[in-house]
Amino acid sequence: MQTISPITEQLIDLAIAEDLCAGDFTTDAIFDDSACSRGRLIAKKDMVLCGQHIFRCVVDKIQARCFGNFTPVSLHFSFQDGQFAQNGATLAEFFGATQVLLKAERTALNLLQHMSGVATHTRAIVNILGKKTRLTTTRKTLPGMRELQHYAVQCGGGHSHRFNLGSGVMIKDNHIAAAGSIERAVKLARKFAPHTLRVEVEVSNLHDVDAALQAGADIIMLDNMPSDAMAEACRRIQKRALVEISGNMTIQTAEQIRHINVYCVSCGALTHSSHAADISMQFTGI
Amino acid sequence: MQTISPITEQLIDLAIAEDLCAGDFTTDAIFDDSACSRGRLIAKKDMVLCGQHIFRCVVDKIQARCFGNFTPVSLHFSFQDGQFAQNGATLAEFFGATQVLLKAERTALNLLQHMSGVATHTRAIVNILGKKTRLTTTRKTLPGMRELQHYAVQCGGGHSHRFNLGSGVMIKDNHIAAAGSIERAVKLARKFAPHTLRVEVEVSNLHDVDAALQAGADIIMLDNMPSDAMAEACRRIQKRALVEISGNMTIQTAEQIRHINVYCVSCGALTHSSHAADISMQFTGI
Amino acid sequence: MQTISPITEQLIDLAIAEDLCAGDFTTDAIFDDSACSRGRLIAKKDMVLCGQHIFRCVVDKIQARCFGNFTPVSLHFSFQDGQFAQNGATLAEFFGATQVLLKAERTALNLLQHMSGVATHTRAIVNILGKKTRLTTTRKTLPGMRELQHYAVQCGGGHSHRFNLGSGVMIKDNHIAAAGSIERAVKLARKFAPHTLRVEVEVSNLHDVDAALQAGADIIMLDNMPSDAMAEACRRIQKRALVEISGNMTIQTAEQIRHINVYCVSCGALTHSSHAADISMQFTGI
Amino acid sequence: MQTISPITEQLIDLAIAEDLCAGDFTTDAIFDDSACSRGRLIAKKDMVLCGQHIFRCVVDKIQARCFGNFTPVSLHFSFQDGQFAQNGATLAEFFGATQVLLKAERTALNLLQHMSGVATHTRAIVNILGKKTRLTTTRKTLPGMRELQHYAVQCGGGHSHRFNLGSGVMIKDNHIAAAGSIERAVKLARKFAPHTLRVEVEVSNLHDVDAALQAGADIIMLDNMPSDAMAEACRRIQKRALVEISGNMTIQTAEQIRHINVYCVSCGALTHSSHAADISMQFTGI
Amino acid sequence: MQTISPITEQLIDLAIAEDLCAGDFTTDAIFDDSACSRGRLIAKKDMVLCGQHIFRCVVDKIQARCFGNFTPVSLHFSFQDGQFAQNGATLAEFFGATQVLLKAERTALNLLQHMSGVATHTRAIVNILGKKTRLTTTRKTLPGMRELQHYAVQCGGGHSHRFNLGSGVMIKDNHIAAAGSIERAVKLARKFAPHTLRVEVEVSNLHDVDAALQAGADIIMLDNMPSDAMAEACRRIQKRALVEISGNMTIQTAEQIRHINVYCVSCGALTHSSHAADISMQFTGI
Amino acid sequence: MQTISPITEQLIDLAIAEDLCAGDFTTDAIFDDSACSRGRLIAKKDMVLCGQHIFRCVVDKIQARCFGNFTPVSLHFSFQDGQFAQNGATLAEFFGATQVLLKAERTALNLLQHMSGVATHTRAIVNILGKKTRLTTTRKTLPGMRELQHYAVQCGGGHSHRFNLGSGVMIKDNHIAAAGSIERAVKLARKFAPHTLRVEVEVSNLHDVDAALQAGADIIMLDNMPSDAMAEACRRIQKRALVEISGNMTIQTAEQIRHINVYCVSCGALTHSSHAADISMQFTGI
Repeated sequence: MQTISPITEQLIDLAIAEDLCAGDFTTDAIFDDSACSRGRLIAKKDMVLCGQHIFRCVVDKIQARCFGNFTPVSLHFSFQDGQFAQNGATLAEFFGATQVLLKAERTALNLLQHMSGVATHTRAIVNILGKKTRLTTTRKTLPGMRELQHYAVQCGGGHSHRFNLGSGVMIKDNHIAAAGSIERAVKLARKFAPHTLRVEVEVSNLHDVDAALQAGADIIMLDNMPSDAMAEACRRIQKRALVEISGNMTIQTAEQIRHINVYCVSCGALTHSSHAADISMQFTGI
Repeated sequence: MQTISPITEQLIDLAIAEDLCAGDFTTDAIFDDSACSRGRLIAKKDMVLCGQHIFRCVVDKIQARCFGNFTPVSLHFSFQDGQFAQNGATLAEFFGATQVLLKAERTALNLLQHMSGVATHTRAIVNILGKKTRLTTTRKTLPGMRELQHYAVQCGGGHSHRFNLGSGVMIKDNHIAAAGSIERAVKLARKFAPHTLRVEVEVSNLHDVDAALQAGADIIMLDNMPSDAMAEACRRIQKRALVEISGNMTIQTAEQIRHINVYCVSCGALTHSSHAADISMQFTGI
Repeated sequence: MQTISPITEQLIDLAIAEDLCAGDFTTDAIFDDSACSRGRLIAKKDMVLCGQHIFRCVVDKIQARCFGNFTPVSLHFSFQDGQFAQNGATLAEFFGATQVLLKAERTALNLLQHMSGVATHTRAIVNILGKKTRLTTTRKTLPGMRELQHYAVQCGGGHSHRFNLGSGVMIKDNHIAAAGSIERAVKLARKFAPHTLRVEVEVSNLHDVDAALQAGADIIMLDNMPSDAMAEACRRIQKRALVEISGNMTIQTAEQIRHINVYCVSCGALTHSSHAADISMQFTGI
Repeated sequence: MQTISPITEQLIDLAIAEDLCAGDFTTDAIFDDSACSRGRLIAKKDMVLCGQHIFRCVVDKIQARCFGNFTPVSLHFSFQDGQFAQNGATLAEFFGATQVLLKAERTALNLLQHMSGVATHTRAIVNILGKKTRLTTTRKTLPGMRELQHYAVQCGGGHSHRFNLGSGVMIKDNHIAAAGSIERAVKLARKFAPHTLRVEVEVSNLHDVDAALQAGADIIMLDNMPSDAMAEACRRIQKRALVEISGNMTIQTAEQIRHINVYCVSCGALTHSSHAADISMQFTGI
Repeated sequence: MQTISPITEQLIDLAIAEDLCAGDFTTDAIFDDSACSRGRLIAKKDMVLCGQHIFRCVVDKIQARCFGNFTPVSLHFSFQDGQFAQNGATLAEFFGATQVLLKAERTALNLLQHMSGVATHTRAIVNILGKKTRLTTTRKTLPGMRELQHYAVQCGGGHSHRFNLGSGVMIKDNHIAAAGSIERAVKLARKFAPHTLRVEVEVSNLHDVDAALQAGADIIMLDNMPSDAMAEACRRIQKRALVEISGNMTIQTAEQIRHINVYCVSCGALTHSSHAADISMQFTGI
Repeated sequence: MQTISPITEQLIDLAIAEDLCAGDFTTDAIFDDSACSRGRLIAKKDMVLCGQHIFRCVVDKIQARCFGNFTPVSLHFSFQDGQFAQNGATLAEFFGATQVLLKAERTALNLLQHMSGVATHTRAIVNILGKKTRLTTTRKTLPGMRELQHYAVQCGGGHSHRFNLGSGVMIKDNHIAAAGSIERAVKLARKFAPHTLRVEVEVSNLHDVDAALQAGADIIMLDNMPSDAMAEACRRIQKRALVEISGNMTIQTAEQIRHINVYCVSCGALTHSSHAADISMQFTGI
């Protein structure tokens, strides 16, 4: 069951506010309160659908802001979030007050297209990596969209990494430099952090891999390491820690590292550089 | 002078909230309050820089949330928003409390990279279209980011289209169908809307071009029309209305329509499908 | 269909908060949860009714805040927004939980009376100006009430002017002074602003009228000009620009300028100095 | 020392949001970041000034939203809140970034003019009633403005009545009907309400005056009673309760009741029907 | 009828946000959308129940945030707020979507347990003081919880004191020192404050009791005075003012002062140091 | 360095709003803008101080809301957060505008006293458990206060448990029942949850201890188990999982389990049932 957190709801409210805060003269001029429309959402390219509860949420919120027409918009999706839909597929059918539909259209589609774009992008890389390696998010998300983007990555077949600064311990080069050594950094973090969190160390060479193992890191992230060094690192680590690969992962680079046997690959591009899926809202009658 | 609207500020607050609302155990475990760091923002690819006031705003807000260290972060950018920076360029130098810098890093970079990505994308198409044709935004923006994305498009050399539903009149096929004719739709809109707004009509064939001209439209948008139909439309319209071209504009399609003499080209991809610019925050000493 | 924007909803929440945030000891002491009341809203003077969706919204919100009684308040207005109602007319009938009605009464009436006051004021001036000249709002509105006041002016027969700083271009004396000339100011604005916005220039003498025409202004606002100068200005402008008249417009001054043939008259007093309409909420049984 | 409560601050933020949320193309097109202006606020009619801390607050908030120019706006008022200023008087002088001043102008003036209008209206009636009778607010205020309007009434020489539903007990006809008698209503309220609040009963005839006295009301409000009935009521009450007069109080009716010796007169028109004071912001150099 | 003020609602939203803003991986991993559960709330100690409308509010809010399951949670309490429930009693029965119940459980219980704890604590002291003396709150409440805690004290048999700084006049030693004398402090306060508020003076010796009486204080608060001095103070005051006792009131001290005949006793511990009532949410079937 | 998250800041704003939203007639009546005061915070009992940055934050926020006096309040604490202070100790000294101090006093003290109370309570149990066993929070916190209460527990010598539903995986009896077995529940959770989180299983008998070990749980929580069963569980688990003890932990029960060698003890009472520390704000001169 997908939940909309308070932050996500505030984001949706901002999206509605920025589009609607000065009215909609075009629609108000032409449609009266009793006008109703029927129509469809159509996929204009192949895609993994994602975000229908958010689409619905926007429509419901606009409906609640409109007075004079109380017919709720009926909206039925033919696909589940995470399902693949071919170019041309009818994703959903709807019927409701025309004013509501026109005022909600852009904001609702912007969200659905973005989330479907992230899910589609994720699916493409997941298909390359296969089942043995987990593809994860990073914290390189768009502002206010972390929950929605994590969900889209999950729908695409990926997984969440730490959601925010408080839901994981991640020791990077700056932390190590300040602590004096990987060992001391891990020790300090372990001492302070909740016992419910694993401790992850980011390394970029084999020397640090050894140090991280020595320090008892739960997860070792190989950051931008050459392919053979990664293989050697995995050999050294074996089952003593989870191995994560990171660094400008794309469909191309995924191909190159798919043979390496690691626990997960984290990929910022999923959330900072996905293309919107192309979805069209077509009225079939007004 | 760039202004941060209340909606944008709320968006930044959401971004900070989603990342920081459960603390940062790693940083708190390792750095004490007096730790300071020096470092740089480095361009990892060619880019048009955009969003430094937002970067600064995030850092200032995190600083204000931190107690125990009152040294303000000093931050100096070497480029103006809208300036081109080469791969490897030092975009900015900073010095300040390490805890502030580490807690602000991801959120501040996410915004700077996104905005610079949009500006860079815009610049590429502007360079193709040349000075005679204006490249504009659409309402296909990411939630809560309309102001920031419009600004990024401006920094890239593009222009704003109508900011929201209330800052322009745009008559589309559904409005026309409901009104019965382009003429009646324009008349109704003109009668109701503020006189400070122009009336734009979206058309997809030459017949509707004629009708829009007849109806006295101020702007005629040619939506997804073939190249020769666009040329004919321009010929018919001449100076009687501004001509706008729309429909899945990309760097490729921009090449194809650059010879057509229109007032502006609107492009949703600038704001829904730009890649984040690659910027790295490197500490040179802690 | 009237829409309540997020800003308006926040305003209503503030109104409820300031009245109800410390409880209501009187009502809580005397009525139990099952108490219901029936009653009417009565016009105590002639008026143009406006704001019934806001009245309903306040009542619904208070209802949602009350637990223990789930009978929704039924509320039926006998007049449409914008309709004229005579002194003594029953504007609406209601039935519902007494506690809800008493806690909502003042806040709901304050809004309804203000909006009806603005609509009534507008209608009076619209009746003087007649159909050929449009009466418009200004940005001289009360804080947070711009949407509600614009709507009230529309219900009174008036029109919106630019809704906010972003939904129109308005060049005033300070802009002209800074730009060096009307021509340069118009040119700069035209170059920067979205093509969906008209460019308006405020002038106070005939010399500037000529300059604005020369610069290609879409709208020329004659600010506080003597009656004969306005007539001469209109003669010079003819159809080349829309003409707007401004400056301390009242019922008295409307009489004096009604013969001048202009496109619109903007009037700040509608929104900053209207009297509340007098409406009484009478319980006919508890 | 005037305090700005969180609700008032939110109201100011709404006012800024509704005006500035879609940018200001005119100002941004013409002024660069370094432009500064000097100017004055001028009274265009006689008035009691009120709201300078709110004016300053708006300017400061806009300044904080602007990047690129860090010269704070200097602003010096020549009058205290509550002081009388003649038509033509220079109320304040200012110097600061032109963009800040132009973006803040309308919102800041709207608040200052409204508050000064309320203070001026109040002063006029206070001057009629004289020192022996207190003029008070009601809860008939504009949404979100209760604090600002109460303050304006105080600056005009009036007093606060109960600020909200929780800061006083006020028994009206509906409460009495439900309780069965004034005596029982007072008893129930006294039993439930905090002992820090006085109990006020609204009456409209002499019989109820007697009942309220009998019930031990602390304050008796004579609502819309004829002049001689009010005099008789005062005679009966003497010092046993505070006497308040209410009912469509205006400058005219104030004249008529000024000879009656009561504790206070409450007047809704102060806050729902005051005219904005006319204040002009004039730039003397850019 | 219990009302939820906007501040309380915001507090509930914060509570939900802090618990749910990064998802719930455990529940999402294990339960699908159609899973439903039945169960009970059980009292694990004797208690006065309080806060069922808040419990319900949290559940309803979580339900509204969940998509995929629209069966509303049914929830029936077997006790009224303010009723005594023995250890082991079934306080409520519920049935609904498992995901909703598990995500709401902790936040809803935290509120119900706190409020019931305050009510239980209050009842214990009320039982000692008996009916002749009113037990009241203070402003020593937890942040954002004033409304909920006042309500819990009422359910326990206590009363509200002034709700906030604006709903009463309370003159303390600092005010007296600044004014120069109790007499002048009372006079200044009386002159400025709304006539709907009583004036209370805090004193700590008999000399000041006399001065407060002389000044015409409505309420005299004896702060931390020895038992015999309190008795003497009461004798001197008689019916000329209400007498309030204050100062680290506990169950023990309540025993000691129960024989003194005063109007009320205010007790900060009710709201700053109550123990949570122990309530368990048990699922009887999934 | 302590950080104030957006949620905590909103909580502080609610606390200020609920106390100050209707003004402060007492203080406004008696003190003029130039009045300043000097004074101290005094410990009235032994305590562990906690929350000085929050105290300062409240004072700063009230200062920012006050106009007319721009002398910032100076405030110097003599103890660090987490330090022990004896009854009678001067915790801090301050000097500033009297109006600011009086309006901030109650809200600032309520927070400081609560946080110090939690820290003091924690320290008492930590002293019993000794260094080998970690004392942790639970999610049984007061609404909106999770960050502040976690910080207070840390200052008392305790640790954070999972901050919210998203920062840990915790499998309870309901999850196990739904999944069919501990093994399947752990497997499902492990598959779905981020790899940065440990998986914890709550058990109440030895059979389930074995099952949890078998399933590979990272943490096993012994819930309300008898002392000897806990000892046996620890023997079986050894180093294969972290052991946590839970269940109505108090100072008394801490004594009883201190000899058992476990990783941590979680204790809800720290955050739901601590007594406020007694701190007095004394003015030494006005």
